[in-house]
Amino acid sequence: MKSEKISEAVVRRLPVYLRYLSDLHKREVATVSSQELGQRLDLNPAQIRKDLAYFGDFGRKGIGYDVSYLIEKIRHILNLDQQINAVLVGAGNLGQALSNYNFYLKENIKIIAVFDENPKKIGKQINTLTVQPMEELRETIKARNIRIGIITVPDVEAQNVADILIEAGIEAILNFAPVILKAPANIRIHPADFTTDLLSLAYYLDNGKDDSADDGDK
Amino acid sequence: MKSEKISEAVVRRLPVYLRYLSDLHKREVATVSSQELGQRLDLNPAQIRKDLAYFGDFGRKGIGYDVSYLIEKIRHILNLDQQINAVLVGAGNLGQALSNYNFYLKENIKIIAVFDENPKKIGKQINTLTVQPMEELRETIKARNIRIGIITVPDVEAQNVADILIEAGIEAILNFAPVILKAPANIRIHPADFTTDLLSLAYYLDNGKDDSADDGDK
Repeated sequence: MKSEKISEAVVRRLPVYLRYLSDLHKREVATVSSQELGQRLDLNPAQIRKDLAYFGDFGRKGIGYDVSYLIEKIRHILNLDQQINAVLVGAGNLGQALSNYNFYLKENIKIIAVFDENPKKIGKQINTLTVQPMEELRETIKARNIRIGIITVPDVEAQNVADILIEAGIEAILNFAPVILKAPANIRIHPADFTTDLLSLAYYLDNGKDDSADDGDK
Repeated sequence: MKSEKISEAVVRRLPVYLRYLSDLHKREVATVSSQELGQRLDLNPAQIRKDLAYFGDFGRKGIGYDVSYLIEKIRHILNLDQQINAVLVGAGNLGQALSNYNFYLKENIKIIAVFDENPKKIGKQINTLTVQPMEELRETIKARNIRIGIITVPDVEAQNVADILIEAGIEAILNFAPVILKAPANIRIHPADFTTDLLSLAYYLDNGKDDSADDGDK
């Protein structure tokens, strides 16, 4: 019956829940409380209960959440109960690392093709994938039902690559180039933000504990 | 006067503001409204005003925020008005990509040393850095005032590397290994989450637009 849209912030937290729950599942833990989730994930338990209540009432007072059931539910909500094909453009170090990493990712998003415009990279083998020339990008996306594009090219080329991906029918983009991409409203773009992770870390260094302004009058 | 702690969620948004503001600054845009920030960053303008009001009242009605001033303030709050030294452990593809990327990062967090335990990688040149053996890690951290550690080793080695880093005096860790690390409460650990970025993207694919449960009775 529920049809309200889930907020972006909640959607972003779901994979975080999923990761920890999968970890619990591996350790054969059957149930977990919102308190424990909160403590582990550095989130307010009330926030967690609210997030999870979005999808129906799975928690049981005094027992907590059923780990397997919650994993299944979150995977369903995130569309991860089907294989989703992705393409990666830009076979530099980062692109190669991601393509390799892909093989260890337990979830159903798979990089199934890698592209580069550099003749020296074309034909190169990354795990089971072979780097293809950009000329084949459009056709490959259509032929192999590829829905997500991952951009790991230098920032000056990123918008051009995004345009090609969108034109070829990609629905969503993960962008590693440090630029903000323009795209039609129906195309979802997430910046891949290790810069954000790194910069926000600096806040927690010792001299940052107290955010009083630069005035000295306490 | 303000001494309340800033919430984690706000700290995480600050680099996002900073990136877009820096972009505006490069394009010589002097002021920006919370509406425009909101539209560009996919956040509620009221949320943005609330976040920024945390640090004092910079916005002016009808004019908006002064871009340069806001950049300076956010950089100060994030401790980015000083150079922060970082070390990276694990010189695989991802480690190399990050070390290289580091040279393009305009912010003051700098990877100044790279380590690996693999003899084949030790001595390797990554841009201006030379991969050092793990035996030198502890001494280098102390001698060169390194405060942040970046972990890009395989997941089975991650906890061990974290322990060494913490023991050597590191204050914060950015962890790319897909495991949850244990650490004393005074050590800040951020998981580097392109997996989160990627998985949350799947939610926005077409068949995920409507989050009605798996029952068919509308």
